[in-house]
Amino acid sequence: MAKSIFYHAGCPVCLSAEHDILNLIDPSTIEVIHLGDNTDKIAQAEHAGVKSVPALVTPNGNVLHINFGASIQDVKG
Amino acid sequence: MAKSIFYHAGCPVCLSAEHDILNLIDPSTIEVIHLGDNTDKIAQAEHAGVKSVPALVTPNGNVLHINFGASIQDVKG
Repeated sequence: MAKSIFYHAGCPVCLSAEHDILNLIDPSTIEVIHLGDNTDKIAQAEHAGVKSVPALVTPNGNVLHINFGASIQDVKG
Repeated sequence: MAKSIFYHAGCPVCLSAEHDILNLIDPSTIEVIHLGDNTDKIAQAEHAGVKSVPALVTPNGNVLHINFGASIQDVKG
């Protein structure tokens, strides 16, 4: 099965959501990407349809925006 | 393990998110509640902290608001 990708930016809302998601979904099926530390991945996240973080991109390409930590524009800045 | 509760209201965003979540998380660990069909559960959802649907309440009581289908106020109306 393809992996899901969890994008976050280290904000408190992100970390809380990451903790919950990794409790609910087998962590081996999720790649976690910190956009603050990996700014070169921001374009990839935007291309996938990520508008804000934290967000989970499912194996079939859907984007689940979870709560609201920061907009992708804020992460860029 | 306690179950998560997925609250939705039958909206397209809700159904899409429900489909994704049930693909990612073992469905036997999730209770799905349609608030449009079960208006008596709206108070329970609000008490759990649900502000909009679809939302997933985790076993430890955290609320993950997923994308945005409808506010809980709209579901009441």
